[in-house]
Amino acid sequence: MSDIYENIMELARRRGFIWPASECYGSVAGFIDYGPLGSMMKRRIEDTWREFYVVREGYYEIECPTIGQEDIFIASGHLKGFSDKMCQCPHCSEYLRADHIAEGNGVKGASSLDCEGLGQALCTLPCPACGEVLGDVQVYTFNLMFQTTIGPGSQRKGYLRPETAQGMFTDFQRLLRFYRDTLPFGAVQIGKSYRNEISPRQGMIRLREFTQAEAEIFVHPAEKKHPNFSRYAGYRMPLLGIEQQQGETAALEITMREAVDSGLVANEYVAYYLALTHDLLVTVGVNPEKLRFRQHLPDELAHYAEDCWDAEIFSERFGWVETVGIADRTDYDLKAHAAQSGERFTVFIPYETPRKERRVRVIANMGALGPRFRGKAKEVADALAEAVPGRDGVTIKVGGEDVFISPDLYQVREEEVDIPGEEITPHVIEPSYGIDRMIYAVLEHNYSEETVNEEERRVLRLPPGVSPIQVAVFPLMNRDGLPEIASEITARLKAHRIMAEYDDSGAIGRRYRRQDEIGTPFALTVDYETPDSGTVTLRDRDSMQQVRVKVESLPNLLRSLLNGSSSFASLKSV
Amino acid sequence: MSDIYENIMELARRRGFIWPASECYGSVAGFIDYGPLGSMMKRRIEDTWREFYVVREGYYEIECPTIGQEDIFIASGHLKGFSDKMCQCPHCSEYLRADHIAEGNGVKGASSLDCEGLGQALCTLPCPACGEVLGDVQVYTFNLMFQTTIGPGSQRKGYLRPETAQGMFTDFQRLLRFYRDTLPFGAVQIGKSYRNEISPRQGMIRLREFTQAEAEIFVHPAEKKHPNFSRYAGYRMPLLGIEQQQGETAALEITMREAVDSGLVANEYVAYYLALTHDLLVTVGVNPEKLRFRQHLPDELAHYAEDCWDAEIFSERFGWVETVGIADRTDYDLKAHAAQSGERFTVFIPYETPRKERRVRVIANMGALGPRFRGKAKEVADALAEAVPGRDGVTIKVGGEDVFISPDLYQVREEEVDIPGEEITPHVIEPSYGIDRMIYAVLEHNYSEETVNEEERRVLRLPPGVSPIQVAVFPLMNRDGLPEIASEITARLKAHRIMAEYDDSGAIGRRYRRQDEIGTPFALTVDYETPDSGTVTLRDRDSMQQVRVKVESLPNLLRSLLNGSSSFASLKSV
Repeated sequence: MSDIYENIMELARRRGFIWPASECYGSVAGFIDYGPLGSMMKRRIEDTWREFYVVREGYYEIECPTIGQEDIFIASGHLKGFSDKMCQCPHCSEYLRADHIAEGNGVKGASSLDCEGLGQALCTLPCPACGEVLGDVQVYTFNLMFQTTIGPGSQRKGYLRPETAQGMFTDFQRLLRFYRDTLPFGAVQIGKSYRNEISPRQGMIRLREFTQAEAEIFVHPAEKKHPNFSRYAGYRMPLLGIEQQQGETAALEITMREAVDSGLVANEYVAYYLALTHDLLVTVGVNPEKLRFRQHLPDELAHYAEDCWDAEIFSERFGWVETVGIADRTDYDLKAHAAQSGERFTVFIPYETPRKERRVRVIANMGALGPRFRGKAKEVADALAEAVPGRDGVTIKVGGEDVFISPDLYQVREEEVDIPGEEITPHVIEPSYGIDRMIYAVLEHNYSEETVNEEERRVLRLPPGVSPIQVAVFPLMNRDGLPEIASEITARLKAHRIMAEYDDSGAIGRRYRRQDEIGTPFALTVDYETPDSGTVTLRDRDSMQQVRVKVESLPNLLRSLLNGSSSFASLKSV
Repeated sequence: MSDIYENIMELARRRGFIWPASECYGSVAGFIDYGPLGSMMKRRIEDTWREFYVVREGYYEIECPTIGQEDIFIASGHLKGFSDKMCQCPHCSEYLRADHIAEGNGVKGASSLDCEGLGQALCTLPCPACGEVLGDVQVYTFNLMFQTTIGPGSQRKGYLRPETAQGMFTDFQRLLRFYRDTLPFGAVQIGKSYRNEISPRQGMIRLREFTQAEAEIFVHPAEKKHPNFSRYAGYRMPLLGIEQQQGETAALEITMREAVDSGLVANEYVAYYLALTHDLLVTVGVNPEKLRFRQHLPDELAHYAEDCWDAEIFSERFGWVETVGIADRTDYDLKAHAAQSGERFTVFIPYETPRKERRVRVIANMGALGPRFRGKAKEVADALAEAVPGRDGVTIKVGGEDVFISPDLYQVREEEVDIPGEEITPHVIEPSYGIDRMIYAVLEHNYSEETVNEEERRVLRLPPGVSPIQVAVFPLMNRDGLPEIASEITARLKAHRIMAEYDDSGAIGRRYRRQDEIGTPFALTVDYETPDSGTVTLRDRDSMQQVRVKVESLPNLLRSLLNGSSSFASLKSV
């Protein structure tokens, strides 16, 4: 195989999976179109994601705008911190990622240098675009949010969201009410996010507009046991913890139960979503041999996060690619929005039985205050209620002035009060998926070129649940009524919501190859036996075996093959 | 019923259908969030749309970026023409739609006035925001595209797409190859579009960020008969043609066959999608009594369009709202992109048998040209091949200069050549749906307040295929093992991809009301008979009738009720 990336992208363009956006005008780096087959495959992967998160976990999906107002991104920190360090080559005017040039020339720790440090590192290095020495080049930060203006004038800035997550945070109060004020609950979002990359050069891996699927799960800070942990407690998978990375040892193959009990993973919630993510990625077609979970090292971990892991997928072209992040973000996000908005981002948690608490109450003697303070008596009484008097009296503020109140003007009573519960800020567990990277990985891991009967066969071994076309329908010959029968079968399968494609063009072998290349798991052929016997041949993409099956059994048979409840190998010809 | 709009929006906010985006920061007009139930309902409506267009019509979906480069919108005309006329009140600084103020004050034809004319019309009118007379106010055009910058620097402008349609046009060549160079074919897109409204004040009807579902169907200009026209030929629906509007007569209730034959609708394609749109809108829950199809009047119709109709839906609050547009846009879009990009936007259509054509060929006599023109002989020969000689010779341009060539230096031969076919620019049929407006209409048309047993019942009579929750599952009491059985049934229904919701909170009557209000079509109750008989009661939202059914029959029974293949009225208790 020459360069697998080139071969896959050639296939993707030619057959309608993915191509550069608006090619007729010279495409702009970082933007792609999903063509007919790619868009279908993407929807199937998104629907599988929903199957895991919405149906099974019960976290409802919401849909927020992609344009957000400035306050959101002040609170989230994106306005300040979502930036890369860049410079412009003084010779060719190309915009460049400063840290990438330094790293590419062997400068260690380039990503943690500041602008000045990077500038010094670059002065003797060549521009990667034109080759001239960069010299006295200025390095500055470039915010990666796309900016726009809402409405006329320039008074209201808007930003294209850099992640879908913020929608779940700003909607926290509404969501809390939807879930009837009870923790834990979660909400998810699948949608476009944007990152105005300085100069993206990695095809589908680094896009300026991409699709994310994110879940934000709000949990009680003291209760991080997942209610369904038993589902994944015994799930075994390789974990590359901090220690394994620092010691350069192999990943640990352990169960989630062991991972939590040994302290490798911070809590059951994080462990549960590590396992669910492994399960989900393998379900959509990621090769488990090319999948690892890597813990953030102390210098990578956000200061507020309790634990964070990346699901990394190996690509022949791009190496290990971060595709999913799973983090315990503590109460950082909700507290940030509470501070920025002044609104409530807490949950009232009632105690099982109200707690008793001793409180001191200061009660004004209104009979004495009235004559002395007249119109201000009420204000004095209110201020006293908040005050903590000493033995000889207390000084309070009335109308901005200090006023001394002697003990004869009030009484101090000690009382026992019932405290029914407390306001707490939930912690957030966040699994965040990059859908485009998943799609690329699924294409790369399932693509193969092989020789069958001395002919090249390209095949995409996509899981049947992910293949854009689910079954191809061929008339063996283009006559004798066979096309009509095949068309009718196609229509009937579509009515059963099975994505069938009719094809009568070219030799049957070529038609099989065409379907193999786009990953169609099954193909059925209407031949000269069909009119009499009511049967067709059903061919399996992977084994290339065929069986004869009854036409009337097709919808149920195909459905069970597609959802995995039966296997082709177990089929017998009628 | 007080104001139905207020009541629906209150319900939508409270129950999690729709609420203003980023409320905690003071929401910005024109942006909404779909909450848990709204997002689910939206997805069901989008999936119904796909059922009609992708599965049944066979038009594949594609997914293009929401950010587009400038050339696209130069070609589409949006950069020049996608604008509104606005002014800023000199007193209160509010930005205002100039034409809306004029119209609101009875100025006839305000929408067709130019900036100067509008300025004159406004000078004596009061500002709708502060009431002061606008006086000598300046009216100017405001482009409604959100603008941004791609990458660092400001050299590359980007715009948020004002419609999804352009993606299908810029991808025309790729799509043509996908469909193996054969007309007709179509592609669709469901996704976000943007319109930077000057001051939107109509809730869900006028959004700055909204969802469109558009189909672009590419057809041979001379073949506008829809291959499946028979499906809707007999479909009868009210059409408000130009004549009916100008004569102020009622809409014509005719079949699509009649509409095409009488010339009311331009061709079968347009008529087919008028009927399909009617069918689709009624399927998702639009009241057919509040739905009409209105033809564009001559002064509304785009100069290039052959015919255009709007599906308008009646709203108690907003009147007749344009929700779907169906147009024959001829070859306008493809020709515009061809001119802007210099690329090919045509299809080669082979003739059934190649046509013979007589052609005159001018063949240079190289033996004579060589000595005379030396190094330029080739250039002269090429110019001759393109020339049309007179009797006495011909003047051609060689190296920018006129050169006379006498007849002895060439031969003129008349030949018969085979012309295998021709390049044609397809015409485009475009049905374009505003999904958010559809959702609002479905909520309004299906909302009702009624009194049952002296209690108020609010009910959303959504079609079962559109309801966010498909079945509610209640334990009659919160003890004696009933909750466990109900939870198990809920999980089993979810595994069958039926959206079930468990609820054990409050009296059973209140639980029914909660579900009625969000449009859940069915509710089943686990009671004291369930453990022994294996049956539950199934209650119908609309009739409020109940039947007892077997637990084991639930998945199939509910599926047939949800997809409409059986009706609740036909059920009998076991």
